[in-house]
Amino acid sequence: MNARYVGIDIGGTGIKAGLCDTSGALLAVHEVATPPQRGVVDVLDAIAHAAKTAAGETWDDVAGIGLGMAGFLDIPKGIVRFSANFPQWIDVPIGAQIAHRTNKPVLVNNDANVAVLGEAWSGAGKGYDHVVLFTLGTGVGGGIIAHGRLVEGAHGMAGELGHIVVRHEHGALCGCGQYGCVETIASATGIVRLVREAIAQGAHTTLREVTAKAVFAATDDALCARVIAEVTDALAQAMAAIAVVVNPQRLIVGGGVSLAGDALLEPLREAFARKTPAAVREGVDIVPAMLGTTAGVIGAAGLHVHGRA
Amino acid sequence: MNARYVGIDIGGTGIKAGLCDTSGALLAVHEVATPPQRGVVDVLDAIAHAAKTAAGETWDDVAGIGLGMAGFLDIPKGIVRFSANFPQWIDVPIGAQIAHRTNKPVLVNNDANVAVLGEAWSGAGKGYDHVVLFTLGTGVGGGIIAHGRLVEGAHGMAGELGHIVVRHEHGALCGCGQYGCVETIASATGIVRLVREAIAQGAHTTLREVTAKAVFAATDDALCARVIAEVTDALAQAMAAIAVVVNPQRLIVGGGVSLAGDALLEPLREAFARKTPAAVREGVDIVPAMLGTTAGVIGAAGLHVHGRA
Repeated sequence: MNARYVGIDIGGTGIKAGLCDTSGALLAVHEVATPPQRGVVDVLDAIAHAAKTAAGETWDDVAGIGLGMAGFLDIPKGIVRFSANFPQWIDVPIGAQIAHRTNKPVLVNNDANVAVLGEAWSGAGKGYDHVVLFTLGTGVGGGIIAHGRLVEGAHGMAGELGHIVVRHEHGALCGCGQYGCVETIASATGIVRLVREAIAQGAHTTLREVTAKAVFAATDDALCARVIAEVTDALAQAMAAIAVVVNPQRLIVGGGVSLAGDALLEPLREAFARKTPAAVREGVDIVPAMLGTTAGVIGAAGLHVHGRA
Repeated sequence: MNARYVGIDIGGTGIKAGLCDTSGALLAVHEVATPPQRGVVDVLDAIAHAAKTAAGETWDDVAGIGLGMAGFLDIPKGIVRFSANFPQWIDVPIGAQIAHRTNKPVLVNNDANVAVLGEAWSGAGKGYDHVVLFTLGTGVGGGIIAHGRLVEGAHGMAGELGHIVVRHEHGALCGCGQYGCVETIASATGIVRLVREAIAQGAHTTLREVTAKAVFAATDDALCARVIAEVTDALAQAMAAIAVVVNPQRLIVGGGVSLAGDALLEPLREAFARKTPAAVREGVDIVPAMLGTTAGVIGAAGLHVHGRA
């Protein structure tokens, strides 16, 4: 049988459905705007409709549907406890509801976990059983695959890589309530903060706008060079901790900040080599994510292949 | 069938074999001195003999043998690449050799991994699928169980918890070549170093001997109180990193330093609560190891129940 899987990325602005084969190849994508009121029934109907539209005439071959979304989820039960994108939802059994509407088995997981699953199945981690993804966006997220399986943790909270503390003195306050988390430095928000603080303290810069993208593009700016060194040092510190804890083969860097490419990756690799004990440093590559915004739908589809046993 | 498993803890001074049932209960132990020359054939013979002696008349019921030892091992192949306890051994296929001598399936793993497996199967982590062990001895070691399975990593190097960096400024040099690893602070060696350095800088103390045990027993000594605060702060920092990465249910503290009991655990729990984001802090207990020096034989036996799929 040519089994197919549908993965759905449920966001605040759009609902994207992707059709995958058993190897993780993306065969079709269908995206619709999230219903404007974000009511439960409207969104559930839109999800089911997007799944069927993406599959088209291969719908009968679809062996399962995976859902990925941001929020606090009860993963085993497929229940949305709370999601900032759908603030009026409380304890919505989204897995059971979509299964009822589609007559297919449904698995649910959070956006960070499905992203690493997508990259491991079909992207920059393809062919490896031990893969870690750092997503550098507004915040820093992540996910871990160990022995070919998603590490979800006791309550689905594993892989909160942005909250590894990398500055024990003079650390900035993080949204999580701790000080010095890597998210306070290596996120787009953190990079902008570092530049603004330096300017406030009198540092000179040629930057015309303060964005993470501009910082990595400013090759001759001494302040930006200092900030890039600080960002890659902090991120390498978090990666070194991950390396001694889970001994991965691939450290994948995704998210908007990663679009800086080698301007980020080259100093990051140097800092990682400096900060990581030899035994866990060898055989680890730091590589860019490959799937971009399709990692979510591919990984959600992959929940049926690589998810819980 | 009343299946039995034999686990063997292969050390530089002794070879200990334990007989377990399928629930992880330890039914019998047999220990012999490690052959003085530590030659390969002598040690292999001693291991096989210890296994048979521990099992006694239930030998026919033994469904597998597990071996645990310190060193650099090729775990999937059961080969000892290098072990400090057996310096003349190079690439010894210990798994195949013991299988040949006993006609039983043999699994091999390192001492830290079998210790966490023992505690998870039959000790302080019994009944939990997400368990982390910190072993505080001369160094700091550890191991991780996620989703009921040992996390070994790509090359068996996962769980090197002693090398999580917790001091990014003013960190002491660690044996691994990095600075500020938790091992430099929360090991018996680290505790003694902290006291000695403070004394060298003129601090007063009532201690008559500088040992980790004496530090935790010196309830009215201001220097010891400062050192205990530093040790528990550093260890809590490493535990917080583990909590956000793997979201465990039980953080187990074993090894010689853990014999300090509540003098260690109470400030450790307070520091962990202060340093860990709420989402991964709740539902985590920090508890003492239960199995003591039998964790190794029990966990080695458990490799056949909880080890690689």
